[in-house]
Amino acid sequence: MIIDLELLLGGCRRTLARAITLVESNTRRDRELAKGLTGELLPQTGRSIRLGISGAPGVGKSTFIDALGMHLIDLGHKPAVLAIDPSSPVSGGSILGDKVRMQRLASAPGAYVRPTPSGGQLGGVASRTREAILICEAAGFDVILVETVGVGQSEVSVAGMVDLFVILLQPDSGDEVQGVKRGILDLVDLAIVNKADGAQKTAAERTAGHYRSAFSLTRRDATKTHVLPCSALHGTGVGEIWRTLQAEVDTRKNEGLFECKRAEQCVDAMEEEFQAILIEELASNPTFSGLRHTLRTKVAEGEMASSAAAKILAEQFLGGLHVPQATTTED
Amino acid sequence: MIIDLELLLGGCRRTLARAITLVESNTRRDRELAKGLTGELLPQTGRSIRLGISGAPGVGKSTFIDALGMHLIDLGHKPAVLAIDPSSPVSGGSILGDKVRMQRLASAPGAYVRPTPSGGQLGGVASRTREAILICEAAGFDVILVETVGVGQSEVSVAGMVDLFVILLQPDSGDEVQGVKRGILDLVDLAIVNKADGAQKTAAERTAGHYRSAFSLTRRDATKTHVLPCSALHGTGVGEIWRTLQAEVDTRKNEGLFECKRAEQCVDAMEEEFQAILIEELASNPTFSGLRHTLRTKVAEGEMASSAAAKILAEQFLGGLHVPQATTTED
Repeated sequence: MIIDLELLLGGCRRTLARAITLVESNTRRDRELAKGLTGELLPQTGRSIRLGISGAPGVGKSTFIDALGMHLIDLGHKPAVLAIDPSSPVSGGSILGDKVRMQRLASAPGAYVRPTPSGGQLGGVASRTREAILICEAAGFDVILVETVGVGQSEVSVAGMVDLFVILLQPDSGDEVQGVKRGILDLVDLAIVNKADGAQKTAAERTAGHYRSAFSLTRRDATKTHVLPCSALHGTGVGEIWRTLQAEVDTRKNEGLFECKRAEQCVDAMEEEFQAILIEELASNPTFSGLRHTLRTKVAEGEMASSAAAKILAEQFLGGLHVPQATTTED
Repeated sequence: MIIDLELLLGGCRRTLARAITLVESNTRRDRELAKGLTGELLPQTGRSIRLGISGAPGVGKSTFIDALGMHLIDLGHKPAVLAIDPSSPVSGGSILGDKVRMQRLASAPGAYVRPTPSGGQLGGVASRTREAILICEAAGFDVILVETVGVGQSEVSVAGMVDLFVILLQPDSGDEVQGVKRGILDLVDLAIVNKADGAQKTAAERTAGHYRSAFSLTRRDATKTHVLPCSALHGTGVGEIWRTLQAEVDTRKNEGLFECKRAEQCVDAMEEEFQAILIEELASNPTFSGLRHTLRTKVAEGEMASSAAAKILAEQFLGGLHVPQATTTED
C-alpha cells in the first residue's frame, strides 16, 4: 500500500484512512512501510492536543465525545477520534457487536472518526494507535481524542500516549464505590461526572464533590486533577470542560511540563517497541528452538516448573549473547 | 527467607503465608529461592481445582467467594483464595482502600485467604500468582479460587492459569448491554448472574436466559459455557454452581481436556517468564547502553520516531546475537 504524502498532508480523508489501515496491518512489509511513513511525517506532527478518554461501558462515552467534538468544530478546531480496544485473544471479536456511535461527529466535515480496530493484542494496538495519532496530526487534525473501551490495562497504555487523560464517571448511588478500577484514578487529569441532568443532576454534583475531596487528599505530584459535572446528552458543561483542558495545557506548556511529558512518552514507546520486536524475532530464532522444544516437553509433562525452564532458556540465550565480548577480551 | 518444607506440606498457615510472601518478593535472591521452592514442591502440586473468578466492582465478588468458600468447607474441601490485582504504575496503590472482605471465610480454620498483593505490574503478578497456586496446592488446599479485580487484561491472565473461569454478572436493567469488557465473555466457562434475590430475582433470571442464548449462538469450541443465577447474599444457587463446576471438571477429565489444558498453560507460562527474564536482563546489559542512550536522546528530542529507533536497537541486539554462529561457519 503506497500512501501519497501530499494528499495526506493536505488532509485527504481517503488517504488518511488508508494510512491508518497501513499502520494497523500485521504483515512485515506493511510494518516497514508504516515505520517509513511515520518517520517521514515526523516533522509535521506534534501540533495537537492529545486527549485520552476513558470510562466504564454505559457511562456515556460516545455521547460525550460526540458533544465535545461538535463543540470543538464550532470553535474552529479539527478533532479526530481514535479508539483503542484490545480484543479477546480467543476469537478476536465481540459477541455483543458495535453500536452506532458518535453520529453527528462521524458525518461532520471538519472531523475524522476512525472505527474501532478489531483483533490484535494490547501491545501491538498501543504502538499502532501511537502511529495513528501522528498520522492524524500530519493530516491537520489538532485535537486527537483517544477513546479506551473498558476499565483496565488499556487505560495505562492510553495514558502513556496522550497529554491529558480524562475519565467519565457515573453519578454515584451513594452506597458504594463505583466501578473504577484501582489505580486508574491515579492516571486522571480530569474526571467528568456525566449524566448531570434530570433526576441525577444533584447526585452528579455530589459525586463530583466527593471525587474533588478524594483527589485533593491523595494527589501529591506536580499536576492537578480537575473534577467537573457534565450532561453529554444536553451538551451542558462541555464548554467548561474544554476551557479547563486548554488552561491545563497552557499551564503545563508555561512550566515546560508539556513537552517534557511528550519526550518521556516517546522514549517509553521506543523501549516498548524494541521489546516487541525482540519477542517476535525470538519466536522464529532457530538457535534456541531445540532447547526450547525439549524444555516445553518437560514442562508440559510436569517434570519441570515453568519458572525453572524459563530460567534455563534465558541463560542459554544471554550466554550466547555474551560470547563475542569474551572472545574479544582474550585476543 | 528460608521456608520449612515439612511445615509447608503439613499445611502450617504461617509457613504458607511466608512462602507466598517469598514468591511475591522482588529481590533477585528471593526470586531464586522462590524458583527453587516451586521446583521442589512440583511433585506435590496439581491436585486441586483451580477457579478464576471475575466480575466488575460492585457485582458481589467477595460475598460470592465467601459463600462458595463456606459451602466448600461444609463439603470437606479446603479452599484457598488468591487475588490478582495489577495496581497503578503511578503510585502502586489505590485511593479507595481495601474493603473488609470475605469475613466468614477469612476466619474459617479450613480455608486460607491471602490479602490482595499491592504494587507490581501485571506480568510479574501473573507469574507470582501461578507460583502461589502451586504453594497452596502443596500445603493441601484442594480448591484454589483466583479472584481478579476489574474487567480487563488481568482476566486474560487469570484465564491462562485456572481450570475454569467464572464471571459474575449483574441482573440487567434491560435497556443496555452491561459493563462486561469485549472479549472477556469468550474466556468464560460459567457465567453467574448474582443478586437473584428480592426485587431483582426476575431480572436476574431473565438476564441468565439472555446470556444462555448468546453463548449458545456464539461458542463454537469443544467446551460449554454454563449460565446460572445466584444470590451470594443468601447463599442460594451456590450448591448448584459447585455441582456444575465439578461436573464440568469430570467431563473434561474423561475427555482428556483437563490435563491437556494444564499442560498448555505450563508451556505458555514458561514462554512468558522467559520473555520477562530477558527484558529484565536487557535493562541492565552494558553492551547496548551506549546505543540505547543515543537513540533515547534522539527520540526525546523529536529527531527520530520511536518505532525507527526501536528497530535499530533490535537489529543491533539480534545482530550481536548472530555473531558467534557466523564465526563458527567461517572456521
